[in-house]
Amino acid sequence: MKALVYNGPGQKSLEERPRPLVIAPTDAVVRITHTTICGTDLHILKGDVPTCKPGTVLGHEGIGIVDAVGPGVTGFRVGDKVLISCITSCGRCEYCRKGMYSHCTTGGWILGNSIDGTQAGFVRIPHADTSLYPIPAGLSLADEEALVMLSDILPTGFECGVLNGKVQPGGTVAIVGAGPIGLAALLTAQLYSPSQIIMVDLDDNRLAVGRRFGATATINSASGKAAEQIVALTAGRGVDTAIEAVGIPATFGLCQEIVAPGGVIANVGVHGVKADLHLERLWSHNISITTRLVDTVSTPMLLRTLQSGRIDAKQLITHRFMLSEIMQAYETFGKAADTRALKVIIEAPEESAA
Amino acid sequence: MKALVYNGPGQKSLEERPRPLVIAPTDAVVRITHTTICGTDLHILKGDVPTCKPGTVLGHEGIGIVDAVGPGVTGFRVGDKVLISCITSCGRCEYCRKGMYSHCTTGGWILGNSIDGTQAGFVRIPHADTSLYPIPAGLSLADEEALVMLSDILPTGFECGVLNGKVQPGGTVAIVGAGPIGLAALLTAQLYSPSQIIMVDLDDNRLAVGRRFGATATINSASGKAAEQIVALTAGRGVDTAIEAVGIPATFGLCQEIVAPGGVIANVGVHGVKADLHLERLWSHNISITTRLVDTVSTPMLLRTLQSGRIDAKQLITHRFMLSEIMQAYETFGKAADTRALKVIIEAPEESAA
Amino acid sequence: MKALVYNGPGQKSLEERPRPLVIAPTDAVVRITHTTICGTDLHILKGDVPTCKPGTVLGHEGIGIVDAVGPGVTGFRVGDKVLISCITSCGRCEYCRKGMYSHCTTGGWILGNSIDGTQAGFVRIPHADTSLYPIPAGLSLADEEALVMLSDILPTGFECGVLNGKVQPGGTVAIVGAGPIGLAALLTAQLYSPSQIIMVDLDDNRLAVGRRFGATATINSASGKAAEQIVALTAGRGVDTAIEAVGIPATFGLCQEIVAPGGVIANVGVHGVKADLHLERLWSHNISITTRLVDTVSTPMLLRTLQSGRIDAKQLITHRFMLSEIMQAYETFGKAADTRALKVIIEAPEESAA
Amino acid sequence: MKALVYNGPGQKSLEERPRPLVIAPTDAVVRITHTTICGTDLHILKGDVPTCKPGTVLGHEGIGIVDAVGPGVTGFRVGDKVLISCITSCGRCEYCRKGMYSHCTTGGWILGNSIDGTQAGFVRIPHADTSLYPIPAGLSLADEEALVMLSDILPTGFECGVLNGKVQPGGTVAIVGAGPIGLAALLTAQLYSPSQIIMVDLDDNRLAVGRRFGATATINSASGKAAEQIVALTAGRGVDTAIEAVGIPATFGLCQEIVAPGGVIANVGVHGVKADLHLERLWSHNISITTRLVDTVSTPMLLRTLQSGRIDAKQLITHRFMLSEIMQAYETFGKAADTRALKVIIEAPEESAA
Repeated sequence: MKALVYNGPGQKSLEERPRPLVIAPTDAVVRITHTTICGTDLHILKGDVPTCKPGTVLGHEGIGIVDAVGPGVTGFRVGDKVLISCITSCGRCEYCRKGMYSHCTTGGWILGNSIDGTQAGFVRIPHADTSLYPIPAGLSLADEEALVMLSDILPTGFECGVLNGKVQPGGTVAIVGAGPIGLAALLTAQLYSPSQIIMVDLDDNRLAVGRRFGATATINSASGKAAEQIVALTAGRGVDTAIEAVGIPATFGLCQEIVAPGGVIANVGVHGVKADLHLERLWSHNISITTRLVDTVSTPMLLRTLQSGRIDAKQLITHRFMLSEIMQAYETFGKAADTRALKVIIEAPEESAA
Repeated sequence: MKALVYNGPGQKSLEERPRPLVIAPTDAVVRITHTTICGTDLHILKGDVPTCKPGTVLGHEGIGIVDAVGPGVTGFRVGDKVLISCITSCGRCEYCRKGMYSHCTTGGWILGNSIDGTQAGFVRIPHADTSLYPIPAGLSLADEEALVMLSDILPTGFECGVLNGKVQPGGTVAIVGAGPIGLAALLTAQLYSPSQIIMVDLDDNRLAVGRRFGATATINSASGKAAEQIVALTAGRGVDTAIEAVGIPATFGLCQEIVAPGGVIANVGVHGVKADLHLERLWSHNISITTRLVDTVSTPMLLRTLQSGRIDAKQLITHRFMLSEIMQAYETFGKAADTRALKVIIEAPEESAA
Repeated sequence: MKALVYNGPGQKSLEERPRPLVIAPTDAVVRITHTTICGTDLHILKGDVPTCKPGTVLGHEGIGIVDAVGPGVTGFRVGDKVLISCITSCGRCEYCRKGMYSHCTTGGWILGNSIDGTQAGFVRIPHADTSLYPIPAGLSLADEEALVMLSDILPTGFECGVLNGKVQPGGTVAIVGAGPIGLAALLTAQLYSPSQIIMVDLDDNRLAVGRRFGATATINSASGKAAEQIVALTAGRGVDTAIEAVGIPATFGLCQEIVAPGGVIANVGVHGVKADLHLERLWSHNISITTRLVDTVSTPMLLRTLQSGRIDAKQLITHRFMLSEIMQAYETFGKAADTRALKVIIEAPEESAA
Repeated sequence: MKALVYNGPGQKSLEERPRPLVIAPTDAVVRITHTTICGTDLHILKGDVPTCKPGTVLGHEGIGIVDAVGPGVTGFRVGDKVLISCITSCGRCEYCRKGMYSHCTTGGWILGNSIDGTQAGFVRIPHADTSLYPIPAGLSLADEEALVMLSDILPTGFECGVLNGKVQPGGTVAIVGAGPIGLAALLTAQLYSPSQIIMVDLDDNRLAVGRRFGATATINSASGKAAEQIVALTAGRGVDTAIEAVGIPATFGLCQEIVAPGGVIANVGVHGVKADLHLERLWSHNISITTRLVDTVSTPMLLRTLQSGRIDAKQLITHRFMLSEIMQAYETFGKAADTRALKVIIEAPEESAA
């Protein structure tokens, strides 16, 4: 089968690989029909993720068809259409029993990281019963394909940003960073009907997308006056929820300037370095700061929400490629400022599985 | 009347001052019977609290007897024994309506800060109906006097440390800093029956007090191995709740090393400078960091808890002085490592009110 | 001034009454510009509410202009446009401090019940600072007038039905009763984006209104098969939230048949008699049943939500009258099945205040 | 092996049965070392539990040693000492993923009900990985044996009574029914340090046990004045938490009389008939009523709490028998008023497994 392989920092290639097989009794093998590329894949390619060794097939998002199941799998059969969660969860360990699948002692984020991932014709899914979700019947092809957004970015935006950020009806929200994850937070924040959602970014195109997706205001932070403007938009109070969706000290710093007393800074960004925390000012402000690797506990709820039409995940898809064109897909996704790419869909036709 | 006056950085004196009068219709004037000194008073004397101007009477803790009430006060009468909350709350503003009295738009921490405080024969209490609490009848003199601990340190330890830190039955807690506030957190944490409470400090005497007050383990952090030891004590997992009760970058850093995935760092300490936040490691650990100025919303509950005997606040009192000896009381409290002082009780006999 | 006076069971009249005056320092007198009639007013007229004595001016909803304030009122001035809450709250008592204003020891639901109400030219509002809300500037006349829906039915539907019922994104909701309160629950439930909201009523017109207001399905319970149909609509599971908005044993019984394991029955209806609770079946179903008199704690949030356009309260208004025509308004509202009345707006022009 | 078999209403016998075998790959077989009898076993013997067919081995509580495991079991090995949960949980279904194991689609309460139970030499445990708990090393023999109380009654009292009842520090609690479950609620309620816990029963001996176990007051309801007395003990307010631990309309009725506004009635009792719910009074009291079949989600926490010495489960054990004497054990447990039995421990020596 075809597979996109990480060959060490800066190195990747589309290669022929043998099909994965069921190893543990609770494994399933899934034939990928659609996958995508995540910002985290670019991090790996920069060499920032030491758990991902050269030779690993990348990718932790996708939908497909069950091709084989181990004897311990009871919830899925060969032929079932499935959504693959970016988080593998055993359902048994202390963390899984608490709903913290991200810290599953034999799972967590392993796909396309410590084991082979989804940018390939097939993928092996450990703990299949609790790491796959059945795709409901009756979706249009376009809606079904858009479920790829449910593997990672919609639950990430929702759990790490919206839930952790305690977005509430009538509340005020700022989302710093209008990339795919920030936009996923924007789409899912609206499930709680806040009265204001302010998007902040340096890219006017992405801010325009933000307005189209429901932001009530947008601010280009190139001006250096984002904090001032947000405080003004909220009658001097700051926001109840500041969602950090970039992952650098400057944007985390901005969140500290704009959070209202009693508010939450919900960190979603993947950070490579430490940040300053201004406790000399914030110690008395009754705020919370939260961090989280997505647990994907909200996947069943988000599936229902997509089915009921309250979120249109298709909007996040800007480009389409075949698996054979994945090198080009990386090119397009990697130069998002130029290509205006949000999420790219990569289709894996049955022959690419051969 | 006698009053302890802040005269600018490093300067204080016991002076004669005119008795305060009712100004607003919702004011009460309280004759102080017992007050105490707080670490924050020392901060003011260092010049760290710019809202406190020279000439201000210090002190935000105390109990006493209502001496006069404005026409708008409906809950208290002259002669009532009252507990003074360190936080003044109007009960009407947006923050008070949400239970965030610390951010009351016309109150908050103002006593002994932006207005005259309790280290005096009398004190004026704005918004008296919602800033005083009736002292229940039937307490022993010793228990009544110990209610001074309810003005600030017990609710601070409880709200900022225990409640924010989500201490739970069976959970694991570390309290970094065994001063009066850390010990107040220790006493009130036990209301939730955690399975482990580990106290960390540099002072062996305070650690011994911690063990007497219910700590299951103590660690002298002079060794530089506190993090290691705490992780070992929790079977490699770290603690569910790390309470920072010092207020410097090093102790806040320690909390980041020992918090378990899914845990909380509850900041109680008053910080003068920023701290490093290791998001490069913590972004994926599903933790929360909370800050809070005490709201004193838990005061009625803590009063009931003291009455029912579940917390013995008397244990926190190590020294006793008369108001006329308050300069000496400051001396004793300021050299706590030598004097082994925790909280000092300052009694104001009726004649000192003259 | 003109006032609608309750004269004992079945008796009411539009009478001339003297204008109310400020009595307590915390009172305000408000000139009513718009009021409305509530189902509870009909209950009083049936003689079901013994706390309401003959001679009382009815009405607990309305907006108006502050005409006089006592010396203890700090948040409002003569001339301010205000929304009157149906619940009077002192902001000081134990219940108010917990956000349970409905049980305020000197307030609660007293307007148009134990003291004179809002169906008049003027009304006296005790505890004005914490029982009135400023009307934001910049609303259209129609939107301003529709704020009358915020005095009672929108917070009632929201707090007693939606909040107590724990409506969640992706959840399933049934609302039994499509009268004004049930429809208020329907409008506000959508703030949480449930995937299904099923309305149940005997009146096809009201069900049609329900569909227009956002119900995903409607059921006429005349068939006797409502339970069966709801279970079928939810794939055999029942609903996560069953909102009882009628107030009789039969509808409360229906809620018991349709609530899913782990779900909530949120009672909103005013009940005159006891109901059967089928504990022999429900003891093991992990359900909750909640009751609540509205606290109006959500009023500020709902105001922001109306301002941001997420809820259009105007939709609830079907008929309009002048205060001089209020007897006719009662007639129309009382025969809702025939007149298709939801809420009637009663305008009180300045001259009616004379 | 020996086994206590239900032979239809009123009929039971100690019989020889073949040892159970592993059937599904996720099964374990456990050799029982200690088991006990539950009030529910008596319900079955009355013929009240139609899911339990004649021929079934009774018992859903116990500890033992793993004797065999299926190939899908990863968390336990032959020879491990284990605690058996009364609730079988697959860890995979929608309910298990939400922590509602009691409603597991292939589990729930099945042991000694729809499949053979623990009152035998051996028992087969389906979904072993998520239905057994490892017994920690280092316990005394007496403490280890007392873990049998963790199979059912301690989590039942805690989850259905204390957690559902929202017991809080400083709160007031009444527990109606001082049988083993009511006493388990009493022991575990103290984990949250309420200021009052009032036990109500008809049996003075059990009330005396209640006082020994930490009740702050006890009331013999034979007087017919229990409601009055509880209201008096709580300064006229009623209790924040009323725990129903009997299961008949009268005691459920008492709970309705004593619950304070804003309080919770937490039903623990197994009810055979419907009860009256006085909505005509309670509709406006802001109360909750909860029902629950224990989920045993709190088992790991309770295990830690027992280990840390905060709960002494041994106190619940009043009588001891060998498995060969189990008919006599039923006799003793069934006549608890005479024998003063709380829980009986039944030891199954290795030879009884033969």
